[in-house]
Amino acid sequence: MTSAKTALAYLAEHRARHLDDLCEFLSIPSVSMDPAHRADMNHAAEWLAAYLRQIGMRHIEIITEGGLPIVYSEWLGAAAAPTLLIYGHYDVQPADPLAEWRTPPFTPTIIGDNLYARGASDDKGQVMAVIAALAAWLQTSGRLPVNVKLLIEGEEEVSSTALHRFVATAAERLRCDAVLLVDSMMLSPQQPLILYGTRGNCYLEVTVRGPATDLHSGTFGGVVDNPFNVLVRLLAALQDGDSRRVLVPGFYHKVREVDDAERALINQLPVSEQAWLALTGAPALAGESGFTALERASIRPTFDIHGIGGGFTGPGKKTVIPAQATAKLSMRLVPNQDPHEIAELVQTFLQRLAPPSVTLTVAVLSASHPVLVDYRQPAVQAASAAFAAAFGNPAAFSIGGGTLPIAATFQTCLHAPLIITGFGLPDDNLHAPNEKISLPCLFGGSEMVAHYLAELAAST
Amino acid sequence: MTSAKTALAYLAEHRARHLDDLCEFLSIPSVSMDPAHRADMNHAAEWLAAYLRQIGMRHIEIITEGGLPIVYSEWLGAAAAPTLLIYGHYDVQPADPLAEWRTPPFTPTIIGDNLYARGASDDKGQVMAVIAALAAWLQTSGRLPVNVKLLIEGEEEVSSTALHRFVATAAERLRCDAVLLVDSMMLSPQQPLILYGTRGNCYLEVTVRGPATDLHSGTFGGVVDNPFNVLVRLLAALQDGDSRRVLVPGFYHKVREVDDAERALINQLPVSEQAWLALTGAPALAGESGFTALERASIRPTFDIHGIGGGFTGPGKKTVIPAQATAKLSMRLVPNQDPHEIAELVQTFLQRLAPPSVTLTVAVLSASHPVLVDYRQPAVQAASAAFAAAFGNPAAFSIGGGTLPIAATFQTCLHAPLIITGFGLPDDNLHAPNEKISLPCLFGGSEMVAHYLAELAAST
Repeated sequence: MTSAKTALAYLAEHRARHLDDLCEFLSIPSVSMDPAHRADMNHAAEWLAAYLRQIGMRHIEIITEGGLPIVYSEWLGAAAAPTLLIYGHYDVQPADPLAEWRTPPFTPTIIGDNLYARGASDDKGQVMAVIAALAAWLQTSGRLPVNVKLLIEGEEEVSSTALHRFVATAAERLRCDAVLLVDSMMLSPQQPLILYGTRGNCYLEVTVRGPATDLHSGTFGGVVDNPFNVLVRLLAALQDGDSRRVLVPGFYHKVREVDDAERALINQLPVSEQAWLALTGAPALAGESGFTALERASIRPTFDIHGIGGGFTGPGKKTVIPAQATAKLSMRLVPNQDPHEIAELVQTFLQRLAPPSVTLTVAVLSASHPVLVDYRQPAVQAASAAFAAAFGNPAAFSIGGGTLPIAATFQTCLHAPLIITGFGLPDDNLHAPNEKISLPCLFGGSEMVAHYLAELAAST
Repeated sequence: MTSAKTALAYLAEHRARHLDDLCEFLSIPSVSMDPAHRADMNHAAEWLAAYLRQIGMRHIEIITEGGLPIVYSEWLGAAAAPTLLIYGHYDVQPADPLAEWRTPPFTPTIIGDNLYARGASDDKGQVMAVIAALAAWLQTSGRLPVNVKLLIEGEEEVSSTALHRFVATAAERLRCDAVLLVDSMMLSPQQPLILYGTRGNCYLEVTVRGPATDLHSGTFGGVVDNPFNVLVRLLAALQDGDSRRVLVPGFYHKVREVDDAERALINQLPVSEQAWLALTGAPALAGESGFTALERASIRPTFDIHGIGGGFTGPGKKTVIPAQATAKLSMRLVPNQDPHEIAELVQTFLQRLAPPSVTLTVAVLSASHPVLVDYRQPAVQAASAAFAAAFGNPAAFSIGGGTLPIAATFQTCLHAPLIITGFGLPDDNLHAPNEKISLPCLFGGSEMVAHYLAELAAST
């Protein structure tokens, strides 16, 4: 096994410089959501390409696919060794509300053990942690232990349209033995976390239309149906109030059975019900009966209403029968539920319940597949070992409750194991003012990647 | 019986002048809702007081009761005759959206048989129709056939707070044998309508609170309760989806039994189900089983949700578990339901259903009592006869589906029969651009009042 020792020494020696480089990268306001920052997006992509050239990556390319630039880079000099695709993104969330930042969002500032800036944790800091590890190997050994394909996109915060297109069309070029997605977090500074899957999502908009216009509820109350009265009945029919199970026939048919070993693995995660309560401020936890909170957050599907529009919600009282009511709702899905099939089932169920006094439409706003990886595979276990070497503890394993549509695309197109992980922390203020990254996590992240390249080379 | 003949002749002769006077009154923008029109409110009250003095009313007074001015006037020279209290209002709705008016809202304009202006129908036109009738009697006979107390308020569009206070404290002074409320409409230019009651209203705001802040539905979905999921279940539990009956125990206990004669009277109203459909544009009518649409709009209570706030309703999709969800809902009540008692019953019912994973609060935004008048009383039947004399048809009788809180206050404080009627039409664009009054209804309204004073004198 190639030793990571000299690479680690290089990382330790060059921390200050790597930090300076990261600060330079963070000072480019690459806000993908805001067209006013289009030039900054190009600037950030070009900065990144130039940086990769400088550390010794061989092939560097900027790909657009009709969207914001994707920075793609390869080092394929380890002929017999496996190939690792590493994913991250350089676009960031807008910095609003600006007034709530204690330091300027695009003037990176170190306070104690933390570096504050928009993108520090999500995801420029994590990307630069990876690149520092590549630099350390390339500068000390003149080579990497494995082949590396690096894919850093600029549309993660705005749905990755260009990247989905690129991956779907360049599967041969992106062929690899493992995909390391570095855009996530650790449970604590000492406890790394690997997600061996994510939930999918089926996001629907359900609209009930009644009268042609809003009507006075005195004159017409009791005569025409009220779209809100109908909608709450339909929505309530979707979920049992006691068991919290979804009542749509067929909803659970394809849900994967999880064996005791995996349930035990998930329940090992050091997150207590008390911690959930403290974190959320909810009066009590609640969810599908028969499962622990950790199971309900990972291996079980959910049903959530996000909002209901169309009526009167201003101050005071208005006695109106609204012409329509529209609910936004989504279901987190688990393997092997199919989001399109679930959308169909829900639509059929609701149409059957809707009375003739209203019209019902169901629009599918998004349909993302769940992802599941066999965490016992060597490429995944090697990542845990690399974490153990860098942070003193092997990774905890779980399935992410959220949805990572690009992970499903990687899995479908590349057929390689995914390792979804990262070096952020739960208190990094992602998408919020005063975003930061912990310096120990940042430096540890580089060490983990430096180890992982060697571990992966040895694992196959 | 004193003949209305000379008064009617006077009305016929002075139509142009009465119309000019009304136009002058309409040109004062007495918008009670807008503090910027405070001076206009005073101006309108003073204009009205001066006008009443000029036509020969004896006592004229402007009363404030801490609110916008009430114009009160008396003519009590018919010693042995009954006393009629007449109610109307001189405040108007705001004129927005201004761009949709075809003629300026405060520049009264006659087009064909209609007079267009804000307040033309609601309620300045109707008030001036009454005053023209008083003027006709006073100018031709030097007296009125009955004693008249005229109460014209300036807060009808903003909840009549001052008037409620005044009526409650001046019951002795306002003592009367009948109350004529002139702020309503006819079914058509040939078909007058008298409401012998109105529904009450119990307006509630139901708030379900869960987590302390909005949460990500991927991370926390399935772990904490979603206030929207809970709220739709609670709201759905309030009403049966098939019978459309309210399921709150005790809700119907005090609902008055309506005998066959009264049901027949209500079902006589010339409004077909086809007309309801055409008017509302609803795909089908719906309401409590076992009752006709006309019954459901008058003698049966209702339950309507007006809107639900608190979640995400913008364009696109946001995967949030909202921290709270708030529904506005109301129930129209019929005699002898008590709005405060109903609020209690609903609150108890909902609290019993709410799970420990949320907190529930119920706020009572308003509680208005229903009103019921015995329509067989002479003072009411006399009004129908006056309509027959003026419009060729006696009045149809029904109970108003909406709520008239001041009617309940009159009934409670004055113990006199109420005649709730008016000279507007369903297409008068109340509260909307291009409000108008039909000139035949306006002039016919004056004739109806002129007749009614004589009919009332003769009826007792």
